[in-house]
Amino acid sequence: MGSSTLLLGLDVGGSRTRLRGERSDEGESIEREGPGANPNRVGEETAVSRLSALVDAALAEREGIERLVLAAGISGAGSPSVQSHLAEALDTALARPGLRVHVEVVHDGIIALDAAYDTSSGVIVIAGTGSLVLARTHDGTIVRAGGWGPQLGDDGSGHALGRAGLRAVAEALDGGRDTTLRDRVFDAFALNDRTDFLQTAHTDALALPDVAPIVVAAARADDSVAARILHEQVSALARQLDWLKARTTNVASRLTVLGGLTTNEHYDQALRDALRDCEPDGSIQRLESPPVLGALRRARRLVPEP
Amino acid sequence: MGSSTLLLGLDVGGSRTRLRGERSDEGESIEREGPGANPNRVGEETAVSRLSALVDAALAEREGIERLVLAAGISGAGSPSVQSHLAEALDTALARPGLRVHVEVVHDGIIALDAAYDTSSGVIVIAGTGSLVLARTHDGTIVRAGGWGPQLGDDGSGHALGRAGLRAVAEALDGGRDTTLRDRVFDAFALNDRTDFLQTAHTDALALPDVAPIVVAAARADDSVAARILHEQVSALARQLDWLKARTTNVASRLTVLGGLTTNEHYDQALRDALRDCEPDGSIQRLESPPVLGALRRARRLVPEP
Repeated sequence: MGSSTLLLGLDVGGSRTRLRGERSDEGESIEREGPGANPNRVGEETAVSRLSALVDAALAEREGIERLVLAAGISGAGSPSVQSHLAEALDTALARPGLRVHVEVVHDGIIALDAAYDTSSGVIVIAGTGSLVLARTHDGTIVRAGGWGPQLGDDGSGHALGRAGLRAVAEALDGGRDTTLRDRVFDAFALNDRTDFLQTAHTDALALPDVAPIVVAAARADDSVAARILHEQVSALARQLDWLKARTTNVASRLTVLGGLTTNEHYDQALRDALRDCEPDGSIQRLESPPVLGALRRARRLVPEP
Repeated sequence: MGSSTLLLGLDVGGSRTRLRGERSDEGESIEREGPGANPNRVGEETAVSRLSALVDAALAEREGIERLVLAAGISGAGSPSVQSHLAEALDTALARPGLRVHVEVVHDGIIALDAAYDTSSGVIVIAGTGSLVLARTHDGTIVRAGGWGPQLGDDGSGHALGRAGLRAVAEALDGGRDTTLRDRVFDAFALNDRTDFLQTAHTDALALPDVAPIVVAAARADDSVAARILHEQVSALARQLDWLKARTTNVASRLTVLGGLTTNEHYDQALRDALRDCEPDGSIQRLESPPVLGALRRARRLVPEP
């Protein structure tokens, strides 16, 4: 009767993993949290062992489970080959006698789309440590723009804002336009002089996303250099949306923004203003459901009708 | 009488170390080469052991050396504290009975200045994997601009050109302006599609400086996107010179360019054109003496007059 199926969704990020689940025969809602498991950062083996440990703990508390259906949205799992490899490895790690296991791995952007629109069409703009524009067309095709990672610098992301902010400090020290970013960054990271700053820049001692909130705060306080950086970055992210919509006409005119930076009111407003320019008629909303709910929805859809 | 002094200069880069030396009582010129030893990349301990091994080998072939005077220009050794620490560690590693050792460590930009102008005033512009503008004033003060490292991206450097080139490929894939850089990069690194490119971007599988020559070649072949990148990058490097000269009036109007990128004729011409705009009256020349010669000159100056 399918009464002993455990449905689990995982939202796997770089610094944290969220699990949301339910037993198909009960109203019980399961929530757990574990460490991050981006396979590009911790390696595939560690990622799989962290995720299977989290799932194992949820399984161990419950008796009579005959089937486990797991849908995982994994940060850094962009390519189909990586996804299928991770799915197989999780399948193997979770195998035990008397349990049927079905695992699906997708990019974490996909579960955010599912959380925003379920299986319907729409566009999401993610602005956190990285950034990405992702759409599902009316016929179910996934289209992306941006999300090229920290080395190339995702437009409007914490990485890109942080790098631009530190560059502005460097330019001020070299003789370019002065900015309050100099004192703000020096204060925030206990730097005393140019030599300190040079050393931290060369040893990558400052995580760029940690600098992003400083840039946003300076922009909010009308520092013109910081304001220009913020405007350029959100405009570049909005341009990704423009490009995506030029490539893809078959998509609903609704937009959801999410990601760590969008919880900052000033950033969120700047991003919406930029997005509004290329989405003048459609709606723009904040993501209300957490992405892990999108993963759980995927798990539900993976269960065949009885 | 100082007849048993060995004078050595070291030019220590990220990928290679050059040694040039002489015995003060002979005309003999010593040349050796060893692995790179940037302490930020290989760690201080490895850097010191590689450099002392190179010096030891030069010492072991010669008898009757009572004094060793070593001047090393070390890539990545930007701060005074790192320099003095490396000098002490080299001093200790080279110590043996009957040998007086004197070690000086400076940033590798300094020995390039010495190679270009000895102790006189002038400006150098380095454009290789990284970039830097460095000047010695008439009163001997060293002034720098730029050189903030690969994370922030040195203007006009291999890192900066490479990153801008890959971004242009990413933008072309997303729907921005098309460019021959897309096919050129795909061909050069055996990539087949967007997924390949995304994977290499996220795993940092492409060394950015390896992409720089492709950007310069495309600019030379009149690819407008690549030409714009090259122009913007050399202009930004020239702007560093502008800023430096605004901060420092007490410097001779002569300019020397050096570094891997300047051996490319097209890059060199673009850089000179940009520099000419802010140095219209002074001379611009290519560095003729290798930087290691500047290090040897420093070693000679460290020897007290008899």
